[in-house]
Parts: sequence; structure tokens; C-alpha cells
Amino acid sequence: MDSTILSRRDLNFLLYEWLDAEALTRRVRFQDHNRETFDAAIDTAERLATELFAPHNKKSDSNEPHVVDGKVQIIPEVKAALQAFSAAGLMAAGQDFERGGMQLPVLLEKVLAAYFTAANVATSAYTFLTMSNANTLLKTGSPEQIARFVDPMLEGRFFGTMCLSEPQAGSSLSDITTRAVPDGDRQYRIRGNKMWISAGEHELSENIIHLVLAKIPGADGKLVPGVKGISLFIVPKFLVNDDGTLGARNDVALAGLNHKMGNRGTTNCLLNFGENGGAIGYLVGRPGQGLANMFHMMNEARIGVGMGAAVLGYTAYLHALDYARNRLQGRHPAQKDPAQPQLAIIEHTDVRRMLLAQKAYVEGALGLVLYSARLVDEQHTAETPEAREHAARLLDFLTPITKSWPSQWCVEANSLAIQVHGGYGYTRDYNVEQFYRDNRLNAIHEGTHGIHGLDLLGRKVTLQDGALFRAFGGEIRKTVRKVRGSVALPDGAPPAWAEIGKELRAHADALEQSWQALEQVTQKLYAVGDLNKTLANASTYLEATGHIVVAWIWLQQALVAAAALDDADADFYRGKLQACRYFFHWELPKVGPQLALLASIDTTTLEMRDAWF
Amino acid sequence: MDSTILSRRDLNFLLYEWLDAEALTRRVRFQDHNRETFDAAIDTAERLATELFAPHNKKSDSNEPHVVDGKVQIIPEVKAALQAFSAAGLMAAGQDFERGGMQLPVLLEKVLAAYFTAANVATSAYTFLTMSNANTLLKTGSPEQIARFVDPMLEGRFFGTMCLSEPQAGSSLSDITTRAVPDGDRQYRIRGNKMWISAGEHELSENIIHLVLAKIPGADGKLVPGVKGISLFIVPKFLVNDDGTLGARNDVALAGLNHKMGNRGTTNCLLNFGENGGAIGYLVGRPGQGLANMFHMMNEARIGVGMGAAVLGYTAYLHALDYARNRLQGRHPAQKDPAQPQLAIIEHTDVRRMLLAQKAYVEGALGLVLYSARLVDEQHTAETPEAREHAARLLDFLTPITKSWPSQWCVEANSLAIQVHGGYGYTRDYNVEQFYRDNRLNAIHEGTHGIHGLDLLGRKVTLQDGALFRAFGGEIRKTVRKVRGSVALPDGAPPAWAEIGKELRAHADALEQSWQALEQVTQKLYAVGDLNKTLANASTYLEATGHIVVAWIWLQQALVAAAALDDADADFYRGKLQACRYFFHWELPKVGPQLALLASIDTTTLEMRDAWF
Repeated sequence: MDSTILSRRDLNFLLYEWLDAEALTRRVRFQDHNRETFDAAIDTAERLATELFAPHNKKSDSNEPHVVDGKVQIIPEVKAALQAFSAAGLMAAGQDFERGGMQLPVLLEKVLAAYFTAANVATSAYTFLTMSNANTLLKTGSPEQIARFVDPMLEGRFFGTMCLSEPQAGSSLSDITTRAVPDGDRQYRIRGNKMWISAGEHELSENIIHLVLAKIPGADGKLVPGVKGISLFIVPKFLVNDDGTLGARNDVALAGLNHKMGNRGTTNCLLNFGENGGAIGYLVGRPGQGLANMFHMMNEARIGVGMGAAVLGYTAYLHALDYARNRLQGRHPAQKDPAQPQLAIIEHTDVRRMLLAQKAYVEGALGLVLYSARLVDEQHTAETPEAREHAARLLDFLTPITKSWPSQWCVEANSLAIQVHGGYGYTRDYNVEQFYRDNRLNAIHEGTHGIHGLDLLGRKVTLQDGALFRAFGGEIRKTVRKVRGSVALPDGAPPAWAEIGKELRAHADALEQSWQALEQVTQKLYAVGDLNKTLANASTYLEATGHIVVAWIWLQQALVAAAALDDADADFYRGKLQACRYFFHWELPKVGPQLALLASIDTTTLEMRDAWF
Repeated sequence: MDSTILSRRDLNFLLYEWLDAEALTRRVRFQDHNRETFDAAIDTAERLATELFAPHNKKSDSNEPHVVDGKVQIIPEVKAALQAFSAAGLMAAGQDFERGGMQLPVLLEKVLAAYFTAANVATSAYTFLTMSNANTLLKTGSPEQIARFVDPMLEGRFFGTMCLSEPQAGSSLSDITTRAVPDGDRQYRIRGNKMWISAGEHELSENIIHLVLAKIPGADGKLVPGVKGISLFIVPKFLVNDDGTLGARNDVALAGLNHKMGNRGTTNCLLNFGENGGAIGYLVGRPGQGLANMFHMMNEARIGVGMGAAVLGYTAYLHALDYARNRLQGRHPAQKDPAQPQLAIIEHTDVRRMLLAQKAYVEGALGLVLYSARLVDEQHTAETPEAREHAARLLDFLTPITKSWPSQWCVEANSLAIQVHGGYGYTRDYNVEQFYRDNRLNAIHEGTHGIHGLDLLGRKVTLQDGALFRAFGGEIRKTVRKVRGSVALPDGAPPAWAEIGKELRAHADALEQSWQALEQVTQKLYAVGDLNKTLANASTYLEATGHIVVAWIWLQQALVAAAALDDADADFYRGKLQACRYFFHWELPKVGPQLALLASIDTTTLEMRDAWF
């Protein structure tokens, strides 16, 4: 196994020691599972990621998909890896047994996905797009649509896409102009141009199932402005006959490939629908419900983006750690004898700073993502309606943060991984520069950073009269109380224990104060009475809240680690405690100036004028 | 002229309204110059950068130098651009008239360089390496060496390199093992492997003059450990006969090319010296003085790196600004009618935030770099020895900051420029992703971020018993006094003026408090009495000091802008004041937690152990 992809030790800690994944096996849906079946699935993912995904990650980056005779050419390793992925049943990892799935919790699905993404984000994108597409149709499609399109996707014979953006409509989906005109009772004719379509065209699968947002014109032939006019359609590359065989080529044409800074192995396309009369499409759900139907998938995709950002940071950190332990360079500041041998660079405090920062970012981010995935399982399988409702509130509140925080800070981790490597890290002979390029996408797609700031401050905070915000604050206070109450000294504990308890209580105080300050700032922002002023600095609000949330994630991890310190694996737990200390000493204080800026209702950016630039 | 390369308006502001470049023309060395000759030189640079450098920037990135039959192949536009650069006399822009130069101040040299770097950092690298090499030899070489090697470089017939790093010796130059053995009275034989040699091999010039650090073995054949054993040698690719014609090929072999994330157009080489008996080299200056001789050039190169980082950020900002004014997307939060037309994205507050942040970073960074360049001129041409000494102190103190601050924050500006572009910014169809990749090098070469932290806190702060630090503090206080004393209201000034005066005084208070806090923290750090603890968080010290310094740069710019507000160009000055406000409201407060961390003598990173990762 390639130990620079992810840390299995840490995954075990997060899953079993902190998030109590085994508790899920007491739910009806997961009752056939136990830790052994979970571990077997992770073993498979780790093995396939090591043997078939990681080895062509660099090759895929330097040999981009390109068009020859109208067909997209992709290096053969990609298809081989994806076939093995499907053959192992992973395309249906979370689906019902009766649909041929493994019926795994979302938490486990995300751990499996983490391995593939860390090993090769570009190749794994094909699987996640297909799985998201399938999940959307399973929720909103008719039984006939599911049989015709979803089952072949879960077998890995068909792949899926999501076609939302258009050249003039990216963040602003309400402005799409793709038209869907009824053509008899069963189908529509789709005409329009779609942009940024990952996996939009390739020869990796028998068929490609596009999920397309389009508008059905009114009787006057006009499109309804805004999101209310948007409907969702299935538009297959090849039509599918009633017996499941492929029919005619649909009217969907590749108009060009986008060439990105990273994620180069994922073919990313401009697609023209209906250039020759109209692509045949099938309405999913009801007219006008397109965005609502798609948002099921987008929320899931947002956790997926956060996960991708976290593990691209994580694998780079492991590469940097490995390099720092083996690269000899320089001596301690106090060592004046140049005849002494050079040190491994991990011995330099500033290199340790960079590694510890990476550890704090990536283990914090992965913790946040897995916590969110755990909430999805709670939302769907918790025993009581109240527990499911509570989980849904926490998840809704967290989603913009789970998407954005890793996308910001794990790119910073990637930058530090390059810095640890020095000049070598800046070359394509090493791996870390690619992770940095790949990861930079994550703050852009599935809603930009700015969009999620508006989502958090403008929507999530006020939703249900503030119930989401209060629910989350309750969780923070629960952890604070737990720290204050439960860090008791076991018999015969070493004196260092008392210090650890004191330290964690100091962290808990800091966390509680930060959350209180955030509550006050939130009230202040809404007391202004001018939405433009309230939302002007929403990105800063998102960043401050994100840091507080990850501090809380770290405090939870530290609490588990402190209780396990007398374990044989003490070094591992010491590392958790030190990373937690790093977060509370170095990172959480950054929130202070951010909250002060927000509380001052700063209008610097709001008042800036175009002419002054 | 390509107005997305740099802002001529801002350069005029920085040069003539703030830094009083015209005052330099009263110095003997520059007495033949005036604003017209300065502007003519800038016109030339702007024109050549626009017509010959910028157009192949992207092509150069996607068509990297590669080796065919042992020769490095480079796209022809590079040679054409460099020939035009030399033909315009720019290779000798700062040199004496009698050497065929333009005898321009360093300040002006840096402005010319800024245009070429912003337009095409990869192609311009060949010129700056050659000019740095020439400057080093002019300071330390013999008249015969200068005539033989430097004059052809200033004509652009020969190009230069600096060969410092080796595979096992990057940041730690004391560990180089390249050997130089005397071979008769006139020359040495050089054997060793050099790494990261930019412009190390190519067909762009008639000859390549390598400046090589190597050690002369003692009588026992051993190399002296440490930096004291290092000497500097000229090692030409082709030997140069007494009549200036080229002689035999020297024993310098290309061992391979490095392939980087950015700066791809600059050939970057592993070179093997002396594989076939020993490369012929000529000692420069005295034995053992190699590093001291090279450091002349390295300090200059460090300002150059800061300049490069600043202008790569600057040009990306101008691209983002242009995009934001032309891209339509979305509506204001309060606008609920989707039938209303979409806005130019510059109308969104969060986009303005990102543009204003970029403006604050890049105009602050360019200001810092040009201020430093101005100090070089003061150091060499100020009327009194005291003034020259004072300038030297300020420059020495600032150098690690001038190198590092732009390298950190203008990459952040590059990231924001991508973010403003959304998905388009992440593609190679637009320019900003390349600037981001190109700029990431700057925190690594010419001393990593961590090295400069140690240089600032471990060396510059204590040098001359703290005189550098005190000199710089004196400059800060001078500006503070100037703000407090001189923001008077001119007759008939509008009421807004009083507010501006009040605001600048508030900024001055904040700056003074930050500097006092830094003074206290510095004392505290040195009171610890344990060098490892004092220096443990030197990178944070560097970052905090950098932010305070750039706040001071902004306050100086704002002071000039405030006095010119009634000018016809009021929008420009309003922009300066707003960017200054941004820096004081959004950026300077970040220093608070950093200084608090330093004052607490935090040992989190120092105590972290290898086994805990």
C-alpha cells in the first residue's frame, strides 16, 4: 500500500475512535455491516487506489485528453482503473442491496472516495459524477428512467454528467437559455450550449447520461426568467432502446475541450445540444423543479468537493513529511561547526511549523468532511424524527463551510508542501506541485467561495428563524461542557495529564468565547437593516465561522486523543494534541480581527467604486 | 500599449509624486538625466514589453525548452525579444556612459525591469541573470576579466548565469562540494555538479558566462567545511581568446533540464562541470571571498525577486479588473427580479473586495520594491556619508521583507485574480493561472521564506547593536509625525477633507502602535536567552514585520494622494485612499494575533517531534 496516499491510522481514528462508525451498524439499514465489512471495503479502496489510480496520476496530468477525429482520446490507464472500480462494485457502494449495492453508510462511501481522490482526482472524477447523477435520478426519476439509465450507471457501463453552466450563466443559473420543447408526450427537444461539462465526452463507457438544466418555453415561446422556469432533463449520448440496447446517436455535439491548470485528466467540455434539430431529452420530475432536484445532488457534491480539497491537502502533506524525513540540509541555528553532518530538514523548527500547519489543516478538514458525512447518515437513519431533523439542521448549516474551508486551507497546505520541498517541490519531478494545481479548482466549482459566504450569512443563518445557527451553537457548547466535565485523571495518570486537562479547558474557553463573539456579530450584522451592508463582508463571515468550526473539530479530536494517551500508540495521540494546540494557538486567534471587522460594519469594499480602481 | 501589463499612471505616481525620482537628477551621477530621459526609457520598455515580450508569454509556457541533439531548443520569439532588448541598450541601462550604458538610477532600472517581467517573466529572466552577473564582475572582477567577459554581456552577445546550488546544497551553501584546483597561474580546473541553473544552457547568445561557487582544496586535498572555503569563478561555455573571439568549448555539460510548475520558458539546468578532466575557470577576487562577492549580487537579486513577485501580482490584477468590468453575471442581493439584466461582476461587493485586496497587495508591494530600489540609489549617490550610511541600514533591514512580502501576498493576489475570473480563470485560455504558477517560485528561490525569517530576526534585527532596526523605526515615526502635522485643510477644501485627515491620523496611530508592539516583542524574544526559542517562530516575525512595513508604505502613498485630491485626477487618488483604508482595516489587524503569539514565546512547533507526525 502506498502510505503517502492517506493515513490509514488516522482514518481509523476518525472513523472508529471519534465518529463511532460502528454505532451505525445498529441501524436497520446497516445491520448487515460491522467493522470487518467496513474495513474490507476500505482495504479494497486502498488497494485499487494504490495499484491502479495513483500510478497514472502524473501521466494523466501531462497527457491531457485531446480530440482525434471527433473522439476524445484518454490514456488507457484511466479506463482500466475505472473498470476495476466498477467491477469491485464501488459504483454502487452506497446503494441498496436489492439494487446490487453494498448499502454502506455515506460516511464509509466518503472514506472510499477519499482514497481514490487522493490517489488521482482526475480519474476518480468520472466515478463521482456518475454516482451523483445516479443518486439524483434515484431520488427524482421515474422507475422506468431508473431502470433504463441508472442501473447501467451503477454497473459502470454508462457514465453520467451534470450540465448546469452555460457560457453566460455560471454562478447565476437563473440566466440559462437552453430550451426544452415538448416533442410528443414522452420526450422533449433540447437546444442550447453547456459549458464546463466534466466527463462530457469520452470513450470510457458505453454511453453518457447527461443531466441537463433547461427551460420549457411558455405558450408565447418566451423563457420564464429566474430559477422557477428551470426543469431537469435526461439527455443520453446514445438513445437507449426498451430492451436496454443502444439506439441512435443523440444530437449532442462536442464543441471543444477546456484546458485547465489542474485536474487535467478529467475531460472538460463545451457541449452543443440540438445543433441538428434538437437533442432528445426526458423530463425528470415536474416542470420547474429542475434546480430543486439538482440541489439534492449539489449538496452531496459540496461535501464531495470539501472531501476532495481535504485529501489533496492530506496526500501532499504525507509527501512533504516523507521528504522532510529524508532530505538532509543545514544545521541548527546554534550549531556553528560546519563540519557537523547536515540534519534531516524535519529537524528545523520552521519545517516542523510547515508540517504541523499542514497536519492541522488537513486532519481538521478531513475531520470536518467526515463529520458532515456522518450527519448525512444521521439525517437518513437516526432513530427519531427529532434526531433526523437535528442532523439535517447541522448539516445544512455546515455545508457551505464543509465545501469552502478545505478548499481554502488545504490549498494553503499544498503550498506549504511545496515549500517544504524547496526547489524540488516546484518541479514536475515531484508530486506536490500537481496537488497544488489540482486543488485550486475547489474554491471555484460547486459554488464559489463568495457564493457560499452569501449562502451561510444570507440564508443558513436566518433559516427557520435561526434554528440552524442555534442548533450548531448547541453542539459547540456540548463539547465545551464535555471538556470541562470529563477530563478527569485516571488512576496512576502521569503528571503531564493534569497539564493536558488544563490545556484542553483553555481551548474550550477560547472556543466558547469565539462562538459567543460570532453570535454577537451575527446579531449586529442583522441589526443594520440594510441587506447590502449586512452581506458586504459575507466571505469574511464564512472564513471566521469556518475557523471556529474547525477549532471545534480539533477539540473533539483532542478529547479522544487525551483519553487514549496511555495507549501503546501514544505518539499518534501526542501528535493529535499538538496539532490541536497549533490550531488554538496559531489559527483560532486569526478570527479575532475578522470578527472585529465584521462588528464594525466595515464598508470599505462596499463603497469602493469602479472608477477608483 | 498593452494596458494590462502595468499601470503607467501608477508608476508615474510612485516615481514622481511619491519617491521624487526627479530629485535624483540633481546628483552628479544622474545630472545628464531629467524626467524626459526617464520617461523615454520607460516608453521604450513599455513598447518592447508590449510588442515583443507579452505576445509570446503563453506560447513560451506551453512550448518549454527541450533538448534535441544536445542543444536546447527554445521558441524563436525569445531570441528576437532579447535581441531587441539588447539593441535598445537596456542590458546596460544602469551602467556608466563610458561603458556604453545609460547611467540610469537603480530605481529606473527596476521600473524598466518591471515592464519586462510583468509581460514575460520567463524571457526577461535571461536579461536579469546577465545583468546581475555583469554587476557582480564589475564590482569584484579584474579589469581584464571585465573587458573579456562583461563588455560582451552588456552588449547582449554573451549571457550570464549564477551557479550556486548543488543537489545536496540548496539553502545550505556551506555544503557545496564543487572543487577548483589550480592549473598553472592563470586558471583553475572546476569539477562538480550544479543544480537549478537558470539559463544554464541555450543557443540564445554567442556564449554563456557561468559564475560558479566552488572550493579550493587545501594541501591535504580536503575541502574546508563551511562558507569560508568558498571562492567565486568565471567558467565560460566557450573560452574567450585574447582578441575576444571564441575559443574551444569548455568542459561544461548539460546533464538535464528541470521541468517546473511555472517559469517554464526559462531553461533551468543541471550542469556537470569537469566531467572530462576539469572545466577551465578563473578566480574572481580573492580565495574564500566567494560568498561575500556573490552576496552583492544576491541582495540585488532579492530586490529583483520582490519586484518580480509584485509585478506578476500587478499584471494579474489588471487582467482581473478588465475581466470584472466586462463579464456580466448575477444581480445585487436585494434585486429579486430575474428579468433585470445581469450586472458587470465588478458591481458585486465580494468581487470588489477581491479587486481591492489585489490592489492593496500589488500597489503596496510595488511601492515597497521601488522604495528599496530608491534606497540603493541613496546608498550610492546621496550627498553625505551619513545619508549613504542611513540608506544602507534601511536597505539591509528591508531586504528580507522586500523579497518575501511580495512573494507571499502577490501570489495571494494571483489566486484572487483567478477567483474573480471564476472557472475561466482556472483555464489556460486566460492568463491568470500562468501568473499564479509563475509567481509561486518567488517564495523559494534567492532564499526561502524561512531563510529570510532567520535573516531578519536572527541577523538584521541585532546587526550593529540594533542600529538597523532603530533606523527603520525612526522612518516610521517620521511618517507618523508627518501625518499628524501636515494634514491641514487648504482654503476652500470640501468637508470630506476633514474626514480624510481624521482617517489618516487614525491610520498613523495604528501604525505607531504596531511598531511599538513589534519593538516590545523583539526585546522579549531576545530576553529568552535561548536562541532556538528566540528564532523558533522567525517566519511569523517576518510576516508581521512585513505587514507593518507595507502599512507604512500605504500611509505614505495616502499622504501624497490626500494632498492631490482636488486634482482633475481625483478618482485615481480616491482609489489610493481606499486601498490604504483597506490595508489598515483588513490587513494590518492580522498582525495583532501574530505579535501576541510571538510575545507568548510559543513553543508549539519547537516541541513538536518527528514521531508525533
